[in-house]
Amino acid sequence: MKDRANIDTIESKITISKRGLALPASPIRKLIPLAEQAKGRGIKIYHLNIGQPDIETPPEFWQAIKGYANKVLAYGNSQGMADYLSKLSQYYKKCGLDISPDEIIVTTGGSEAIIFAMTIICEPDEEIIVFEPFYTNYNGFAIQAGIKLVPITTKAEDGFHLPPRAIIEKVITSKTRGILFCNPNNPTGTVYGREELNMLKELVRDNNLFLLADEVYREFIYEGKHISAMSMTEISDRIIMLDSISKRFSACGARVGNLVTKNRDIYNAALHLGQARLCSPTLEQVGAAAAYDLGDDYFKKMVGEYRNRRDVVYDGLMKIPGTICINPGGAFYIMAKLPIDNAENFASFMLTEFSYNGKSVMVAPGPGFYASQGKGQSECRIAYVLKTDDLKDAMDILKRGVEAYNLKGK
Amino acid sequence: MKDRANIDTIESKITISKRGLALPASPIRKLIPLAEQAKGRGIKIYHLNIGQPDIETPPEFWQAIKGYANKVLAYGNSQGMADYLSKLSQYYKKCGLDISPDEIIVTTGGSEAIIFAMTIICEPDEEIIVFEPFYTNYNGFAIQAGIKLVPITTKAEDGFHLPPRAIIEKVITSKTRGILFCNPNNPTGTVYGREELNMLKELVRDNNLFLLADEVYREFIYEGKHISAMSMTEISDRIIMLDSISKRFSACGARVGNLVTKNRDIYNAALHLGQARLCSPTLEQVGAAAAYDLGDDYFKKMVGEYRNRRDVVYDGLMKIPGTICINPGGAFYIMAKLPIDNAENFASFMLTEFSYNGKSVMVAPGPGFYASQGKGQSECRIAYVLKTDDLKDAMDILKRGVEAYNLKGK
Repeated sequence: MKDRANIDTIESKITISKRGLALPASPIRKLIPLAEQAKGRGIKIYHLNIGQPDIETPPEFWQAIKGYANKVLAYGNSQGMADYLSKLSQYYKKCGLDISPDEIIVTTGGSEAIIFAMTIICEPDEEIIVFEPFYTNYNGFAIQAGIKLVPITTKAEDGFHLPPRAIIEKVITSKTRGILFCNPNNPTGTVYGREELNMLKELVRDNNLFLLADEVYREFIYEGKHISAMSMTEISDRIIMLDSISKRFSACGARVGNLVTKNRDIYNAALHLGQARLCSPTLEQVGAAAAYDLGDDYFKKMVGEYRNRRDVVYDGLMKIPGTICINPGGAFYIMAKLPIDNAENFASFMLTEFSYNGKSVMVAPGPGFYASQGKGQSECRIAYVLKTDDLKDAMDILKRGVEAYNLKGK
Repeated sequence: MKDRANIDTIESKITISKRGLALPASPIRKLIPLAEQAKGRGIKIYHLNIGQPDIETPPEFWQAIKGYANKVLAYGNSQGMADYLSKLSQYYKKCGLDISPDEIIVTTGGSEAIIFAMTIICEPDEEIIVFEPFYTNYNGFAIQAGIKLVPITTKAEDGFHLPPRAIIEKVITSKTRGILFCNPNNPTGTVYGREELNMLKELVRDNNLFLLADEVYREFIYEGKHISAMSMTEISDRIIMLDSISKRFSACGARVGNLVTKNRDIYNAALHLGQARLCSPTLEQVGAAAAYDLGDDYFKKMVGEYRNRRDVVYDGLMKIPGTICINPGGAFYIMAKLPIDNAENFASFMLTEFSYNGKSVMVAPGPGFYASQGKGQSECRIAYVLKTDDLKDAMDILKRGVEAYNLKGK
């Protein structure tokens, strides 16, 4: 009987799609079981591995949701709630961008905005250029959309700034449909300047490409000023801006994002994708609309807090001899090239073998942010989403951890 | 200067992807502007065109959300909140299905579950068989996933039941990866019986296909009993069940769905898709978990109400001479073949030219539910989501509208 059962199992074997099998496990999340085990052994883990801020979601957000008075939670508009679209338009005006409510599609997180954009500009098998290290989930979205990401490597030594135009142009083929960049950047914290934006503008115009601008960290700027891709009005028909409240209002679990475009074909396609999935969740749009009423003070206070955190992390990194890292101007991440041979082994080591005074640190290993095989081996992403005292302690532990890791093999 | 500007516009012309252009506008929603105009003229419109129930979302759902005490709305688990997964598993047990929490992935609406399933079983350009008329948004999901839907036509005269196996087998090619069906059916209300399910079981087993079972209307059964695809445990590695709370708890705007699978490859791929988009919204999962605590009384009362509504609509249809429609056993839709030549013209006529006592009716034209060109021309979908008195009035108006429409041309 047992043999028969086995034969049945073999006979009925059915395989899923290649893209289904190719979908990567989240490199940020896959070390979580090791962290859980460490906690089980009584070790306190500082989580520098994930961009989950500790900042409270604004009370205004909660109050708006808790005051929602409708008794039927009905389908909303596919493009987003009218009130919320109008709040977004006002917000962009304050950012110096002239964007009307009918140039915005509300999405379920910035994630959905990115998937929509990839689907709208590419046939299956077409290509989008990205700058690695990049937000690791672009990989999963690309596989879902059936498209290919073509990476251009940027370097810690250059502060992860963009390479010269000729380097980018070298990888453009007849299948290339756009360039996707994140500014301020996750995972590097790099803020791109006017020259880099001008280069991208000319590049997409001369090569008939779209420019996908992920600007979810717009407010998180510690030096200078953020330049939005949408300010380059000469190429506004080529730009899709991708946005989200997740970081801006510390509401990662709300899943409220949006897509901005002045190209009507893109708008209509995004609207039709939105109609297929009916609508984004209603309650969180109500909360987000209230959050956008917060004054500049809210952002000033938040950015001040993150600037202090960045300084603590950067100072801590500079105390680890051999670290390569240019102090980044934005977001809340630093991609540091550490004096280690293998970031994945190091991250595991910190969770399984190392502790100092009963504490250790979890970082996100660099290779998960690269599409090119073998890149980022010495790099780790540090998310500074904890209070400064905790970060000081965490950076001291990280330094001791690097020393212990390098002594281990000797 | 004006000429120059025009030239610039032409030079910068950039086209989006073919699939982006192919995305259909929602056939259910596209007549809405005509309805708005009718309302502007003071005409009351009975909305029988969209599956938005008027039933209140349970107070338990609202209370749970309003009592949510965390101050940071953080990322949740990619597969869904542990509490909610466990509630779902208990719910399925009550339905007679043995499904553990780690065989479930929470999705953002049933919509996301369908997109995940299509992506996981098909490469771009591969095929899934559907029975038309079908839930119109399957079209948009298929275009997004880059796959092809192959329709098999079912007929009003047969109560939209499935055709013999040989008819289905005729369209299976080397590209066919699965069969997607909705039971109870939207838009027809048809409930498939044991024989039909057995036929599908043998069909997918003999042809090495997956079976995608959309069972979001599981409770909405007015005759007999619902048979879940997941009860066919002999082929459980081939089944992906797609589910949602939208109709079950009248919470369409919550966007809480889920996917169920006993195939670990499918589970892992769905988890990885889930990890890429991080998580589904947290608050609505909290609400949904509370709603699943509702006893059988909740469903009994709701189903009783809908049964009355169905009877009113069916009786009303039988009063329109020439209508072809077998009284459907489930969901809250009837797809009726009316004595009209063109359902889209008829639906427009009802909103632009016709009214009776200052009132008219909006229906969803049949062709939008077909993939085959030219099918469903005489059919309309009626969603019975209003109170019985309103439905009685609406059906009387519909009868008068059909008469007026047919007199018009003469």
